[in-house]
Amino acid sequence: MITAKARAVDGPHQSFHATEIKRRDLDTHDVLIEIKYAGICHSDIHTAHGEWGEVNYPLVPGHEIAGIVTAVGDQVQKYKVGDRVGVGCMVDSCGECENCHKGEEQYCLEGNIPTYAGVDKYGEPTQGGYSTHIVVTEDFVLSIPDNIALDVAAPLLCAGITTYSPLNHWGAGPGKKVAVVGMGGLGHMAVQIAHAMGAEVTVLSQTLNKKEDGLHFGADHYYATSDPKTFEKLAGSFDFILNTVSAKLNMDAYFSLLNLDGALVNVGAPGEPLSLNVFSLIGHRRSFAGSLIGGIRETQEMLDFCSQHDIAPKIEVISADQIDEAYERVLASDVKYRFVIDISTM
Amino acid sequence: MITAKARAVDGPHQSFHATEIKRRDLDTHDVLIEIKYAGICHSDIHTAHGEWGEVNYPLVPGHEIAGIVTAVGDQVQKYKVGDRVGVGCMVDSCGECENCHKGEEQYCLEGNIPTYAGVDKYGEPTQGGYSTHIVVTEDFVLSIPDNIALDVAAPLLCAGITTYSPLNHWGAGPGKKVAVVGMGGLGHMAVQIAHAMGAEVTVLSQTLNKKEDGLHFGADHYYATSDPKTFEKLAGSFDFILNTVSAKLNMDAYFSLLNLDGALVNVGAPGEPLSLNVFSLIGHRRSFAGSLIGGIRETQEMLDFCSQHDIAPKIEVISADQIDEAYERVLASDVKYRFVIDISTM
Repeated sequence: MITAKARAVDGPHQSFHATEIKRRDLDTHDVLIEIKYAGICHSDIHTAHGEWGEVNYPLVPGHEIAGIVTAVGDQVQKYKVGDRVGVGCMVDSCGECENCHKGEEQYCLEGNIPTYAGVDKYGEPTQGGYSTHIVVTEDFVLSIPDNIALDVAAPLLCAGITTYSPLNHWGAGPGKKVAVVGMGGLGHMAVQIAHAMGAEVTVLSQTLNKKEDGLHFGADHYYATSDPKTFEKLAGSFDFILNTVSAKLNMDAYFSLLNLDGALVNVGAPGEPLSLNVFSLIGHRRSFAGSLIGGIRETQEMLDFCSQHDIAPKIEVISADQIDEAYERVLASDVKYRFVIDISTM
Repeated sequence: MITAKARAVDGPHQSFHATEIKRRDLDTHDVLIEIKYAGICHSDIHTAHGEWGEVNYPLVPGHEIAGIVTAVGDQVQKYKVGDRVGVGCMVDSCGECENCHKGEEQYCLEGNIPTYAGVDKYGEPTQGGYSTHIVVTEDFVLSIPDNIALDVAAPLLCAGITTYSPLNHWGAGPGKKVAVVGMGGLGHMAVQIAHAMGAEVTVLSQTLNKKEDGLHFGADHYYATSDPKTFEKLAGSFDFILNTVSAKLNMDAYFSLLNLDGALVNVGAPGEPLSLNVFSLIGHRRSFAGSLIGGIRETQEMLDFCSQHDIAPKIEVISADQIDEAYERVLASDVKYRFVIDISTM
């Protein structure tokens, strides 16, 4: 067994503490990664706080992982010691179902194995990236292009793919009018990616506080949703709306911004049910859909796309001792735009 | 002005009474139709009862109209006296917006002009098909193929196109698993059309009471939604679900029946908002959409498709004096599967 230093929580309302966890010895197709950086995603907070169902504490969150390969199993083909690699929200899947065969492992019919708070195929609980090392089967390891620094690479593994995948799937590109709801960790990635895909991009944020940043990231327009005139002015404007906000919104108001055959896609969701008037959809054959991260092949495609277009998250690097404070600041929307833990401080 | 005999209601809780209404003199592109049959659609009831917003009474409902051309305006090109024709849910649109140019007049950005309870371009209230004559501009008149009798043609103009259009748009066909929720006026058309398109068709009805009919209409499978095992057994089964039920359903339970990238499309809607858990959509990139009747070109395509595949609604012909009773029976789901008024009894 391999010992890794880590930061864990012991319960929904506990602080993080330093600890040691065990990583399995390398199986034939396993890769041992020395983690350099781990991003902090809002999902980490939901899970750590027990808001998304029961959790087996102690829990080590973290599914935006970037590091260096330090050992490989004896049949590993894809990676070698020294490679710059990443791990995202899942570390395995059945590999045999219809969806896995399509390369959509995130939708594995047996359930994908999440990077933390899951149970791996050896029957052990999975623990995430707030730690110095992780062991992952090679098929779930991503290659990080040379021109992407490891600290900014980390958030691409969740925030990047979560926004790239629906933009890609619903065909954001030249001639398409795309709105991004929310200018947080996900939103600021979505703006950059949709812009690089060639779409005309509008940010819909509560206020105009981050307007300058939004335009810098590539937005063509920026509106405050706190202003009711925004909804009048933009009625029927968009082919595609990517909603990165988990809070409960007035969905009918957002649907009214879609044109014929337009789609609004949620990548987050409130814990409680949403309410909507079906006539908002019927009126212009609109769709309301959801999207979950992306498959492994598509995640690599996203990394290569970001490399090619010089896309990177804007991050604030913190030490391992600052995780609790960072959580509080994420909840207060006080982060531009992603916290990344420097694992050397672990 | 042309005088037509009609049946009208004077308020939300009134009975139908015989009356006379005026139809405009023929404009250059107008067609005068002697109505032979008019179907009774659930929308007629919602509107007559004032449940879909304020109505200018007296109201003559009816948007499933079949009859014979008895006169044409002096520039009419498409029809001549004696032609067998139909009129559906709309009688005009702006003709100039993006959606009209696409042939999707039902989604006209100025609002299509509904066959009744609307205001036409002359500023007059529109009145529907529970009457002996109607005047409609030729572009909104459909040609009824010779092998479709006028009584069964009538319901195709709403129930037929309302189900054909989404099945067509979302690609129901060979290799696709389609579920139809509800076995009423719309549902029994959807089953026949989806079957003729080559899809594998499953009916999801509250009970098994109409199972024999469903299989006869072309369903491959038939399940009762009152049995919770139905939802377990069919989890993740369908590419497409057409929901013809306006009542408030447990949407999350129906979403769980969709596979990856599956879509559930409502063609009706409850008056009150629906509630759903967005995770039901995110889990398998599912979509929830709405669809409104169909465009004029697509309506003609539907009529020709029904002609080619010998598709017809199963109807019960009633006299004009039986409209109130028919409304009660529709509300009690006591109709197999569509009432059609014999206008000669008007």
